[in-house]
Amino acid sequence: MSSELVIHGGTVLTMESGTQPIANGAVGIRNGLIAVVGAAAEVLATMPGAPRLDAGGGLILPGFVNAHTHLAMTLLRGFADDLTLREWLEQHIWPAERRLMSAQTVALGTRLAAAESLRAGVTTVCDMYFFGTTVGDVLADIGLRALVSEGILDYPTPAADSPEAALRLSRELLERFRHHPLIRPAVAPHAPYSVSAARLASAAELAEEFEAPLMIHLAETRQEVEQLLRDKGLSPAAYLADLGILSERTIAAHCVHISPDDLALLRELEVGVATNPVSNLKLGSGIAPLPQMLAAGLRVGFGTDGAASNNTLDPLRDAQLASLLYKGVTGDPTVLPARKLIELLTVGGAGVLGLADRIGSLTPGKEADILCLDVNGPHATPLVDPFAHLAYAARASDVRHVVVRGRPLLQDRTLTTIDLDGVLAAARALAAGARPGSH
Amino acid sequence: MSSELVIHGGTVLTMESGTQPIANGAVGIRNGLIAVVGAAAEVLATMPGAPRLDAGGGLILPGFVNAHTHLAMTLLRGFADDLTLREWLEQHIWPAERRLMSAQTVALGTRLAAAESLRAGVTTVCDMYFFGTTVGDVLADIGLRALVSEGILDYPTPAADSPEAALRLSRELLERFRHHPLIRPAVAPHAPYSVSAARLASAAELAEEFEAPLMIHLAETRQEVEQLLRDKGLSPAAYLADLGILSERTIAAHCVHISPDDLALLRELEVGVATNPVSNLKLGSGIAPLPQMLAAGLRVGFGTDGAASNNTLDPLRDAQLASLLYKGVTGDPTVLPARKLIELLTVGGAGVLGLADRIGSLTPGKEADILCLDVNGPHATPLVDPFAHLAYAARASDVRHVVVRGRPLLQDRTLTTIDLDGVLAAARALAAGARPGSH
Repeated sequence: MSSELVIHGGTVLTMESGTQPIANGAVGIRNGLIAVVGAAAEVLATMPGAPRLDAGGGLILPGFVNAHTHLAMTLLRGFADDLTLREWLEQHIWPAERRLMSAQTVALGTRLAAAESLRAGVTTVCDMYFFGTTVGDVLADIGLRALVSEGILDYPTPAADSPEAALRLSRELLERFRHHPLIRPAVAPHAPYSVSAARLASAAELAEEFEAPLMIHLAETRQEVEQLLRDKGLSPAAYLADLGILSERTIAAHCVHISPDDLALLRELEVGVATNPVSNLKLGSGIAPLPQMLAAGLRVGFGTDGAASNNTLDPLRDAQLASLLYKGVTGDPTVLPARKLIELLTVGGAGVLGLADRIGSLTPGKEADILCLDVNGPHATPLVDPFAHLAYAARASDVRHVVVRGRPLLQDRTLTTIDLDGVLAAARALAAGARPGSH
Repeated sequence: MSSELVIHGGTVLTMESGTQPIANGAVGIRNGLIAVVGAAAEVLATMPGAPRLDAGGGLILPGFVNAHTHLAMTLLRGFADDLTLREWLEQHIWPAERRLMSAQTVALGTRLAAAESLRAGVTTVCDMYFFGTTVGDVLADIGLRALVSEGILDYPTPAADSPEAALRLSRELLERFRHHPLIRPAVAPHAPYSVSAARLASAAELAEEFEAPLMIHLAETRQEVEQLLRDKGLSPAAYLADLGILSERTIAAHCVHISPDDLALLRELEVGVATNPVSNLKLGSGIAPLPQMLAAGLRVGFGTDGAASNNTLDPLRDAQLASLLYKGVTGDPTVLPARKLIELLTVGGAGVLGLADRIGSLTPGKEADILCLDVNGPHATPLVDPFAHLAYAARASDVRHVVVRGRPLLQDRTLTTIDLDGVLAAARALAAGARPGSH
């Protein structure tokens, strides 16, 4: 792999605040970092011998960040749909996880998810699942940037017989990937209602010790809020704040049923939010107050959640849907305008994951996580404004190249580090054998 | 063009009520009509010499119906986004239409729209625009099934200096396509607030004379309802009913701000509804009571509306979004379940357009409007239930073949009757010259 690369032949959207698109621009990459961004002629003159990647007249922009997902749940895609959340979770998803999930199958599901993610223009994923060390190894091998974690619950998980075992696995994960250039280990207590106060405190201490991100589900459903109010006399956010769990390293997923006071609290504690509009809609959980979060000055990124409740891993599609959703719900078509939406998918998501200094914009010195998007289809014609195109017309299938840390992982729509046919065949075989009734 | 064709190599979803998917099925076509549907071995034995189209292991189902659109507005895609409806319409869209739209440019915009539609699996479009005869000629040439019309307003249109001229053009259109196998002419008074009572009556008489569909925008915005209540003392639906405009041949687009009484009235008069969720959200118009429409027993199909307010012509995407939207808004994840959603896209849309006896399901004797969808991508894996796949994971880019009246119009993702490169180049050139400020 060469240590240099020039991506050219397209319009560059750096996603730096206040900048204009660079028509016929290019990005020069050295040793995985962005070296130079500008007019193609100048960049190519600066790096005359570097290998080139042609964007084919399309858009060149930072890769998308998926700020909350459960990658290996791709194996449960379409297992259970159109059900109430409780029925979905208790009668279908949890039993299927118990039957299906091992280190080996999680590795497979993670590979499948990475393939789908790269083809959707994703360069960073924030994963909360089990067998976190395996997930980290798989993603490191593929070359996809990630936050990885080991889910901690009060109950046994597919990976850990006990919460103590999950905490031990978390520590091993933190040690293993402490200095990894792509994989950032995190601590993942599942939710305020599923992890005891003492264990939440242990998880927070572990995150503190390693200065690691802490990801947690927060205020996903009305029932959760009611339960916490009943049992603790506090909203989920206030309860976690009270326990001292929340900090600028916290990634709070969902935050659907959250009050203005809670938002102020999250803002004060500098918590980042991963909003998951499609999953929240599909499970009937509700609609998060995203415009209010942004107005409050919270860091926000988009998550897909797992494929069992989405059913895809396509943050661009989900962000597009969010833009439409909030325009319709508020009656204000100026809400979540095009450029803001693409900021949330890139710099916004990077900020939520604590990676704003390393990724999210095409800025010299940052790591080279870049996607190239074709604009040759009829649905892309005419193309007046690149941000409006991304926000209202572009599709995952338009993603042509994806580069992470300077390494092309998707080139002309072909995955370079994943045996896609092998992964698909293995996933199909596994799912066919794992369906309810096939045992 | 051969008069026989067998589509095989996939799972057949006939969309007939109560039927199960036919694994390894096939559809035999003779003279544009569906001759036989069943197990591939049997169908192939019945038609041994027929040319074959291989679905590549994917899904074979009726083509999608786009029940309300303005095709040529593809030329205005991305011209104006993130604006209030009034600013969008009065400061951007109407001036651009006056500058841009002629018979020649409408032909181009219609070709562009047909290309996008076919690639999204659409086999029937219901178009409301200007230069309807040109639109009909273009679509007949391409081979796409359509309802076409000439927009009638109280004001001059790009095609007609006066409402009387628009009515004359409508009559010409009705006469021209009266017996056309693919193009069904319709009458299109724009909306209750933009067409006088006398002209609405004239339009309805014309539709009556030709037994033609009548399409009209209805109750799209709160402002429209307020205006009609103020000026006529009636809701838009009650006002049209009072005028005798509504019948089982009426296609009412939008119906966003519509009361339970209005719904009962539409049901009683057997009006069909084309719901346009994405356009309604994007313009901040609101959320139509779709679950209530279905509960009331109304015929309903999905429309994309024009590309200036969507910004694509992808009914599958829009239906998927609607399923998520209504689950989230109602808090009930069982709303608009997968199979029901695909019914609305096929048989439902056909019913709204008065074509239920000719298209919408793979039933012997019906016309052969069929799409084949690939299921080879990571986002399609594993595939447990084909309806859940279509409702929650499939994408326009998965559409592989599209057949209308037995004629393959998209084959292995290539358009057979449209010079796509030529259309794209012409549309780009036109749009570049037509932007505000370039004159």
